[in-house]
Amino acid sequence: MSKADLMFTIDHLGIAVKSLAAAKSIYEKLGLTASAEENVEGELVRVAMLPVGESRLELMEATSENSAVAKFIAKRGEGLHHVCLQVPDLSAVVARLKNDGVRLVSNDIKIGAGGHRYVFVHPSSAGGVLLELVESG
Amino acid sequence: MSKADLMFTIDHLGIAVKSLAAAKSIYEKLGLTASAEENVEGELVRVAMLPVGESRLELMEATSENSAVAKFIAKRGEGLHHVCLQVPDLSAVVARLKNDGVRLVSNDIKIGAGGHRYVFVHPSSAGGVLLELVESG
Repeated sequence: MSKADLMFTIDHLGIAVKSLAAAKSIYEKLGLTASAEENVEGELVRVAMLPVGESRLELMEATSENSAVAKFIAKRGEGLHHVCLQVPDLSAVVARLKNDGVRLVSNDIKIGAGGHRYVFVHPSSAGGVLLELVESG
Repeated sequence: MSKADLMFTIDHLGIAVKSLAAAKSIYEKLGLTASAEENVEGELVRVAMLPVGESRLELMEATSENSAVAKFIAKRGEGLHHVCLQVPDLSAVVARLKNDGVRLVSNDIKIGAGGHRYVFVHPSSAGGVLLELVESG
């Protein structure tokens, strides 16, 4: 394992909300500032990002009842949905996780909006947490 | 509002787990390193911290069935429990939140282990998120 491989940061923290407008208003009262909203078609959500130090809060509102976020809220209510850690060498981390028997949501590294590479670790392998890993850079 | 008042970071992310040993093993597989474990008597939990960039993951195992963490797991299972933001001037933020009608779990700023000052914002005022605010030291 290389030293760079160990330099994780929290990239963002996903929060499932019913209303982006209402949630933005709450976090803006705290003193945070939301970015422009954006639709993420692949995930059926509309999101707003709020920078917090080196990390961001990602407020997510479902744009369809088929969205995983809509199903999450129906089951558990609004709240913390996932955490995303940033790691310099995602391939190395994924190889190590597979070798250690860690369960991933999908077996292969996916390419998201803007070309970033990511995987999700299944909550059963992460203490009940839906854990996203993205490659920095 | 002063500029310093706006400099938030994510101090830590609380994760409720059934077994500290099992959860530590999971996150150590990812490449993170846990600190020594510590009992937090006031909260009836035993915790391990894992540094992630400027933030930390806080793994929390209940030491009593009366612990809020035990009740959380009984109701929702293991997983993300709370997020803690660090802010330079907590008194100023709390005054603004009260003025804006934000609901706090307790009305007054509390003093925790090590003398740090903190409040909890009620999930009903934070998009379903149990939100801790601490003053940076």
